[in-house]
Amino acid sequence: MSIALVILAAGKGTRMQSDLPKVLHKLAGAPLLAHAMQSGAALDPEHTVVVAGHGGDAVTAAAQDQHPEARVALQTEQLGTAHAVAQARTALEGFGGDVIVLYGDTPFISEDTLLTMLEARTRADVVVLGFEASDPGRYGRLVTEGTTLTRIVEFRDATEAERAITLCNSGVVCADADTLFDLIDAVGNDNASGEYYLTDIVAIARNRGLNATAVTCDEGETLGINSRPELAAAEAAFQTRRRAELIEDGVVMQAPDTVIFAFDTVIGNGAEVEPYVVFAPGVTVESGARIRAFSHLEGAHVSQGAIVGPYARLRPGTELDDNVRVGNFVEVKNAHLHEGAKANHLSYIGDAEVGAAANIGAGTITCNYDGVMKHRTKIGARAFIGSNTMLVAPVAVGDEAMTGSGSVITQDVPDGALAIARAQQQTKPGLARKLVEMLKAKKAKQKKEAS
Amino acid sequence: MSIALVILAAGKGTRMQSDLPKVLHKLAGAPLLAHAMQSGAALDPEHTVVVAGHGGDAVTAAAQDQHPEARVALQTEQLGTAHAVAQARTALEGFGGDVIVLYGDTPFISEDTLLTMLEARTRADVVVLGFEASDPGRYGRLVTEGTTLTRIVEFRDATEAERAITLCNSGVVCADADTLFDLIDAVGNDNASGEYYLTDIVAIARNRGLNATAVTCDEGETLGINSRPELAAAEAAFQTRRRAELIEDGVVMQAPDTVIFAFDTVIGNGAEVEPYVVFAPGVTVESGARIRAFSHLEGAHVSQGAIVGPYARLRPGTELDDNVRVGNFVEVKNAHLHEGAKANHLSYIGDAEVGAAANIGAGTITCNYDGVMKHRTKIGARAFIGSNTMLVAPVAVGDEAMTGSGSVITQDVPDGALAIARAQQQTKPGLARKLVEMLKAKKAKQKKEAS
Amino acid sequence: MSIALVILAAGKGTRMQSDLPKVLHKLAGAPLLAHAMQSGAALDPEHTVVVAGHGGDAVTAAAQDQHPEARVALQTEQLGTAHAVAQARTALEGFGGDVIVLYGDTPFISEDTLLTMLEARTRADVVVLGFEASDPGRYGRLVTEGTTLTRIVEFRDATEAERAITLCNSGVVCADADTLFDLIDAVGNDNASGEYYLTDIVAIARNRGLNATAVTCDEGETLGINSRPELAAAEAAFQTRRRAELIEDGVVMQAPDTVIFAFDTVIGNGAEVEPYVVFAPGVTVESGARIRAFSHLEGAHVSQGAIVGPYARLRPGTELDDNVRVGNFVEVKNAHLHEGAKANHLSYIGDAEVGAAANIGAGTITCNYDGVMKHRTKIGARAFIGSNTMLVAPVAVGDEAMTGSGSVITQDVPDGALAIARAQQQTKPGLARKLVEMLKAKKAKQKKEAS
Repeated sequence: MSIALVILAAGKGTRMQSDLPKVLHKLAGAPLLAHAMQSGAALDPEHTVVVAGHGGDAVTAAAQDQHPEARVALQTEQLGTAHAVAQARTALEGFGGDVIVLYGDTPFISEDTLLTMLEARTRADVVVLGFEASDPGRYGRLVTEGTTLTRIVEFRDATEAERAITLCNSGVVCADADTLFDLIDAVGNDNASGEYYLTDIVAIARNRGLNATAVTCDEGETLGINSRPELAAAEAAFQTRRRAELIEDGVVMQAPDTVIFAFDTVIGNGAEVEPYVVFAPGVTVESGARIRAFSHLEGAHVSQGAIVGPYARLRPGTELDDNVRVGNFVEVKNAHLHEGAKANHLSYIGDAEVGAAANIGAGTITCNYDGVMKHRTKIGARAFIGSNTMLVAPVAVGDEAMTGSGSVITQDVPDGALAIARAQQQTKPGLARKLVEMLKAKKAKQKKEAS
Repeated sequence: MSIALVILAAGKGTRMQSDLPKVLHKLAGAPLLAHAMQSGAALDPEHTVVVAGHGGDAVTAAAQDQHPEARVALQTEQLGTAHAVAQARTALEGFGGDVIVLYGDTPFISEDTLLTMLEARTRADVVVLGFEASDPGRYGRLVTEGTTLTRIVEFRDATEAERAITLCNSGVVCADADTLFDLIDAVGNDNASGEYYLTDIVAIARNRGLNATAVTCDEGETLGINSRPELAAAEAAFQTRRRAELIEDGVVMQAPDTVIFAFDTVIGNGAEVEPYVVFAPGVTVESGARIRAFSHLEGAHVSQGAIVGPYARLRPGTELDDNVRVGNFVEVKNAHLHEGAKANHLSYIGDAEVGAAANIGAGTITCNYDGVMKHRTKIGARAFIGSNTMLVAPVAVGDEAMTGSGSVITQDVPDGALAIARAQQQTKPGLARKLVEMLKAKKAKQKKEAS
Repeated sequence: MSIALVILAAGKGTRMQSDLPKVLHKLAGAPLLAHAMQSGAALDPEHTVVVAGHGGDAVTAAAQDQHPEARVALQTEQLGTAHAVAQARTALEGFGGDVIVLYGDTPFISEDTLLTMLEARTRADVVVLGFEASDPGRYGRLVTEGTTLTRIVEFRDATEAERAITLCNSGVVCADADTLFDLIDAVGNDNASGEYYLTDIVAIARNRGLNATAVTCDEGETLGINSRPELAAAEAAFQTRRRAELIEDGVVMQAPDTVIFAFDTVIGNGAEVEPYVVFAPGVTVESGARIRAFSHLEGAHVSQGAIVGPYARLRPGTELDDNVRVGNFVEVKNAHLHEGAKANHLSYIGDAEVGAAANIGAGTITCNYDGVMKHRTKIGARAFIGSNTMLVAPVAVGDEAMTGSGSVITQDVPDGALAIARAQQQTKPGLARKLVEMLKAKKAKQKKEAS
């Protein structure tokens, strides 16, 4: 059965206090919209249609960043959820499979839940996702008889008996495309807010002799984000769950509560992550690697046996092969360090290729920017870069070559050669003491003049 | 109506296990005393009198640091709270307005609560601040009849019925100056500890036909600090509240629980603060700025569009204009970076002026200290400072000037000029391999000799 | 009375999902086994016997690392706890004192609890440690009559009445050596799992007319570790307790929940530890020292008045004398900084001796590795090392000597001398502007060619 996802993402999100469309606020490093799309992506949908309103261009960009073939339908007026789904009709012209309606501000619906809905679709025309609310409050209630969903009642319209129901409406629905759009056509806006509600399709379906059913998921999955405090709570929930999963997977963490993961962080069994590590998007750490305290990683691949940090910053384009060592106060960007290479202290390695078992001395800098363009540095296998070497790119240091400490290297260094750029040391006996006396006298004079 | 604050700050704080006077222990970077003074400062008091005992000089300094016109009255003997308030009499000679008695170890009383007390003063001669205790324990109880406060009873003197009262005494009182000091004169010390209790003024007032009333505040406001665990709990409470306030204000934080604020941190709506950031006192971050992970800021101003960190350390006197970029492992102190200037990697910028759009290469250091005095560095607009440049202050680099990577700059560089101080690179074919062989042979020999 | 400890450490720990023997997983920087051994070490035992199974060599190494005279008995087959204890018989040949059986995966049994057990041994032949379980679940129950322990019943064998007992079995037992091994000889394996259970000795003892008793400890002490989530929970429990203890001891911490301690961290009263500090094993901080935010310490001694960080990394072999200052982005390894020495910014000090009141400029690096061997650097008292000095070891800089900023120092500098290795600054008017124009033109040309 082919599937289409319709993701409602038109809300302005006034309570977020921000010009950014609500669905573009980030959770674990990815827009809320991307999380919602990711839930459904596992179903391998034939179509993904995002219904955007405010900030349509930015929403389109984010949607296509997550899934290049996603289409975006614009909802220029905000006339309710049924009206929003209707905007997806053109994009789904000719599609005859099941449609699942998701929400761009509801990031935690799981793949399992969606599969349960699809399975229920084989038994009912309309499937609605509900949840047992710990505090049902003002949620809409799902009124059921046996396995049949008879109607969805808004809290304000509910009877005393209906308000006692704890099975609440998540808003997520599934129906085949023709049925869905037919039902939506019949939805009216004769209600207090004058909006077209998607929930009305259940009653309409029932009136037409179609049958509806409800499936349930954990309440946590239905968490919707409407304000910054809710976003903060969702982020905390994400981190808590991800930490527990990774501990279960055999990742070694002394203080898991101090490690922050991105939505896409991958860490192998038996890898170790020390306290106070931040993973921004795009990081893969292989089994047996070790990420030490106070490290920050983004867009980086760390192979087995590699040790990163403490205080290492890996930026996008970092590729660390087996047993590489990136130490403290070292920044790596757009660079490939081959097996066993070491950059242990106070260095900047950017736009570079570092050969296997090369040793980068403390204070080394690849001078990759000339004020106008960026250039690359190439360091050979087993090369020994002396402390505080400036590698003025474009430049290449050969295999087993060496640079003298404190050298500015502007010309290529052949394999096995030593390059050095250094002034001769001059030692002047007694001059240090004399200088200090002079400086102290000068200071005393300045003080006297100032008083 | 003019107001005077009397802040009792004479306690030794034995349970703090420290020589520091209790009220000088820090909460969110400021002494407890400063917090207590700040609560009352919003009332624009005509007089602020701090009653100090132990460590009077240090308390005086802290009080006047917070409010230069604060006066300090010394309580040389610790004879109870009424006796402490009496020490403020001389400082308030001739003052006829309302006096509020606060406590230097009670940092959370809010401005709203004090305004409520002043409002109640229009209806009663003596106003006492109480709170509904979740666990009344051994607190003194406020005995009331309707809106009248009839007396304050210590727990040990309370009847069974009185012990059932949950409205407890915070110790904060308000009365007009003449009434207050008259009542205090009548307080005796005929009790188990031989102390003069301020709470006794309520009964005395009632006996004299004056009326007293109680107003209440949230229990959290009355939290007093007597031990290090209580201080730690108060700090945690402060941070939790401040984080929630800033989230509400629209500050973007992925992991608010990992950001530590000072009492005076100001962050604009829409600014972003990444995880693991510490704000020491004196920091203002404008809307739209971004403070990245693992940064430490103190006494710094960050303008809109500026990006700080990760791993940036801003020290007092740092002024970052719009769109400035201070990157990783960079320390800035007493320096002004003008619009769009960049110092992205491994640098120390101290006692400096950096022109608009100047680019500071990785590893740059302003050598501001000659062993005796500190000197300033000036860098012009759009200047390009090559990696690992040492700027030996006092020195100036002109607009659009450039320095060669690895140069030690000791003389001023005119606008548009290039300054370079660099030894010629010499490349010696095969020498690296030879050196390694020699070193290995030497090591082997040493090992052999050692065995 | 002489004491022997038998520590059962043969479990494979399948649920840990790791090849590492269970007792070698780390808690607060030390193997679980070391924690268990440390509990008993305070009793000054005559013998310590660790019963190892899986990974015997590694367990032996860890046991002897914690206590050099510990002996290891191998249990080649896992036939139950009584069988495990029996493996210690040979190692305890001729020992006639009391034996306490502990568990390598149960790190929190306190010294006080063990003393209570020994005290109870004067009144009973067999002493079993129990605990009042908040949720007894499937734990074995201790059946008692007055002070007599009549038997230990496994949950599955317990009657309804016995299941209502909340006093549960920790597994820790104490008896004199002869009695213990005699009882163990009588333990059979006629049960569902075919294992020899140590718990059976209580019933056997009773049958022989010996008496048994139970002593209790806090449930938290009996926490055993069987999975990674349990290890994470134990680590959190350790940190929470240690933080509270240190606050009680008068250590100043603004955010104690952000400081991570090792099992052996020692911090003096009145020392200050700022947020986000990680202590790896082997650190002692004296009273009055200050460890600033984002610092990482391992194997280091910090004396009074010293200030470390923010962002300082102290590695093993670091010895900081009084009033030393190690500042931001500074790494120290195997180095002794004498009184008042300062290394404030962006430096690497490894394999070095730094004299009293010496000042190490920003960007200084001790070049201690020549690619084959490590060498030492010696800096004299009151020496002034200019910014970005490379000290190519082995090298010595004398007392009150000075090095010029940006110098590579390869030869010793005598006391009071100035050493400098620096190329002359050349300033070329207008060349910077010309260079930028050329680079921009080149870039434009490249773009044009590429399009």
